[in-house]
Amino acid sequence: MNYRMISRVLGLILLAMAALMLLPLIAGLCFHERVTNFIITIAAAAALGGLLMLPKPRSRSLVARDGFVIVGFGWILISVIGALPFVLSGSIPHFYDAFFETASGLSTTGASVVTDIPAMPRGDLFWRLFTHWIGGMGVLVFLMAVLPMSGEHSMHIMRAEVPGPSVGKLVPRVRKTAMTLYMIYIALTLAEAFFLRLGGMSFYDALLHACATAGTGGFSTNPASIGGFNSLYIEIVVTVFMLLFGINFNLYFLLLIGRWREVAKNEELHWFLGIVLGSVLLLAAGITKIYGSFGTALRHAFFNTATLISTTGFGTVDFTDWPEYCKWILILLMFCGGCAGSTGGGIKLSRLMILGKASAAELKQMVRPRSVVRVQMDGKRVETGTVRAAYLFLAVYMFLLLFFAVVVSFDGFDVATCFTASLSCLSNIGPGMTKLIGPAGSFAVFSPRTKVFLTFAMLLGRLEIYPILVLLIPRTWKR
Amino acid sequence: MNYRMISRVLGLILLAMAALMLLPLIAGLCFHERVTNFIITIAAAAALGGLLMLPKPRSRSLVARDGFVIVGFGWILISVIGALPFVLSGSIPHFYDAFFETASGLSTTGASVVTDIPAMPRGDLFWRLFTHWIGGMGVLVFLMAVLPMSGEHSMHIMRAEVPGPSVGKLVPRVRKTAMTLYMIYIALTLAEAFFLRLGGMSFYDALLHACATAGTGGFSTNPASIGGFNSLYIEIVVTVFMLLFGINFNLYFLLLIGRWREVAKNEELHWFLGIVLGSVLLLAAGITKIYGSFGTALRHAFFNTATLISTTGFGTVDFTDWPEYCKWILILLMFCGGCAGSTGGGIKLSRLMILGKASAAELKQMVRPRSVVRVQMDGKRVETGTVRAAYLFLAVYMFLLLFFAVVVSFDGFDVATCFTASLSCLSNIGPGMTKLIGPAGSFAVFSPRTKVFLTFAMLLGRLEIYPILVLLIPRTWKR
Repeated sequence: MNYRMISRVLGLILLAMAALMLLPLIAGLCFHERVTNFIITIAAAAALGGLLMLPKPRSRSLVARDGFVIVGFGWILISVIGALPFVLSGSIPHFYDAFFETASGLSTTGASVVTDIPAMPRGDLFWRLFTHWIGGMGVLVFLMAVLPMSGEHSMHIMRAEVPGPSVGKLVPRVRKTAMTLYMIYIALTLAEAFFLRLGGMSFYDALLHACATAGTGGFSTNPASIGGFNSLYIEIVVTVFMLLFGINFNLYFLLLIGRWREVAKNEELHWFLGIVLGSVLLLAAGITKIYGSFGTALRHAFFNTATLISTTGFGTVDFTDWPEYCKWILILLMFCGGCAGSTGGGIKLSRLMILGKASAAELKQMVRPRSVVRVQMDGKRVETGTVRAAYLFLAVYMFLLLFFAVVVSFDGFDVATCFTASLSCLSNIGPGMTKLIGPAGSFAVFSPRTKVFLTFAMLLGRLEIYPILVLLIPRTWKR
Repeated sequence: MNYRMISRVLGLILLAMAALMLLPLIAGLCFHERVTNFIITIAAAAALGGLLMLPKPRSRSLVARDGFVIVGFGWILISVIGALPFVLSGSIPHFYDAFFETASGLSTTGASVVTDIPAMPRGDLFWRLFTHWIGGMGVLVFLMAVLPMSGEHSMHIMRAEVPGPSVGKLVPRVRKTAMTLYMIYIALTLAEAFFLRLGGMSFYDALLHACATAGTGGFSTNPASIGGFNSLYIEIVVTVFMLLFGINFNLYFLLLIGRWREVAKNEELHWFLGIVLGSVLLLAAGITKIYGSFGTALRHAFFNTATLISTTGFGTVDFTDWPEYCKWILILLMFCGGCAGSTGGGIKLSRLMILGKASAAELKQMVRPRSVVRVQMDGKRVETGTVRAAYLFLAVYMFLLLFFAVVVSFDGFDVATCFTASLSCLSNIGPGMTKLIGPAGSFAVFSPRTKVFLTFAMLLGRLEIYPILVLLIPRTWKR
């Protein structure tokens, strides 16, 4: 393991965090608030970052496990550092709560333990929502976009941080890929902020909600979330952008370079749109009775389908009041999650497609053992390594889902709360499927122990499990 | 596909069912009941069986998909035929209810829609519990044990009907293997009946509860199940035998031929006993408060651990009153299920062990891509095909679990009821984890539609999914 190089990259991450925290500091100053909490944290992060960068690496090469360690440890580190402003200002007094809230932000989950949002300083609130934007694309991808890092080796970092069954490099060089991704990300964020501002949101609210949508996070400046703005226009804008951020960014790149034919033929996109359409219709049919008209039902069905499949977690109405089968459709969407290469969480649609196709192929083979059935996606053969990785992911995901449900159950909550709290955190969604932790509830009900475990569930979910898990394997640390 | 041979074997199955139904007929006669329902059913089964055996097969060879079709279709057929006595006597008037109850019996699930057990004729009740015994070892294994069927080809049938990741032939010839398994099965059943009779149960009750334990079924002649006998001795006997029937029968064979050293070293057995011990202690600690003393808590913890890990489903107390984390331990046991090659259901312990070991190996490989990590069990290397099959099984199992939960949700029950009803049927257990369908509840609450779906869930679970699934694939029926 190249410890010096790992230390250097971790140092860089801290410096980047210090730089990014200048934004909430400025926001705080604009609202004439005390910003000593940010000044102290920035100073601490910069000092520690500088210290970590002191040892000069003998070589710049990184192997796979270095990538995992950097990403896994790096994300825990930024969750800890990012929690400090909340603790120092007293807006979230307990460290475990602030750690939960920051990891929830960075992992783009959006599960919250804050019960009195209006009482938060505006600078803190800015930071709370801005963490979604940082976490959505990944702080390491950000570093790769702005810094001249050694080419091929940084691929290991990218592979560990970017969600999806396989990282497709858009352009031959990692740095250029990272830069392109960030450009698309920034452009879409600004576009949403613009449309939200048009709808009457303040500049502050528009920018922050765009950031929260971009990362498919789900925190809001409004205690009633998007529903609190009482605007059909704003709901539609947010719905559309939640879906846009749930789609593979590679497709936007292909659109940019004029290869729209490939976009139109993309299988994952077809399934994504099909699932959204099917869910909206099924849900709307189920809740028409509750909301009086099919139109209103359609509006709520559309928003909540988008918020759950993109794993954002914004709320308008309390879907825990919906009929039971509607809840299960939503639970299925929570399992599914966004497309590969989007900022969405969950198992990921393309991974589920690979699993479905591979399982169908195995069944066919079972029936006629001598025939050969190939697994294809977008006309190309899916490698057996990718299929195996998808099965492995599902197995580990299901194991973790049950593990965290058991952990939550020690707090004494009912089966459904334990199950959906675990699912919601692991899929980076936010709300669960019972009143207590639903759109109108809060994760503040859980004990400190449970919160710490769920914090790690969120990080595991965002990093697609392995970078955090790898830290726990003795083999990683052996020479 | 060898249709004539398939027809012949299905005919044989019906004749076997007709023969087996002589037992409840005799039981009914002993209690001076009307047994016309059995006479009609036996005549119908024998006639239909004879008819199916008319076409003379040109060849006796069977391929893999013939095995699947015979087992899948055969089990649906015997569930339909086995339901007739209940409908004809009027003890279960609706066909879908009788179909559910019979499939629940044959699949050794033990979920019941009968609400007034004492009102049932003793002959019908005999049949209800005896189906567990038939289903436990498998009616086709029975045929193979008693009939001279063509050697190697019948392996395809055995492979499709016997639970577990891989069928280990005990002796080179299939017929002898089947016969040995049945001998062990019969001996253990009689031993339990003997011990239960000693404990004061009537001969009728002792024999039937032994049959229900042997199949790890869970039906009882007592409306309060085993708890209704109010006897610590009977509880202990049943507990011990539930565990014995949850262990791989190959181990008993090894004991018989003196290879006890291999038994002592068996990894799956170690895990089975370890999980039982761990669960009993954790549960006992959690429920001591409820039952006043640690001794009573231990008694209930031991019985309910055994009833769920063996997927039997007998009840003594209502575990839905237990603390939430205890419920989750029980849910985990419901996922787990018995050992491979036992009569227990669930995912099966050895399959979970293979999944755990393979996943750990993949993680290790991820950390050091150039190293080679092998998956071993009992000192032997696990083939990649077996590993792949285990991953496939888990994926399809999870998919079906969610699918049936969604189906149940259309009846309007809460998330936990839907989830655990699906889990309980798919793992062939019996009770679910909410009051409504727990040890004191009943599956009678569900709609006819839900009951039909859950009937298939139980058959899917018993046959380890593929034989039923294969019937739905167009490829099976293509020339």
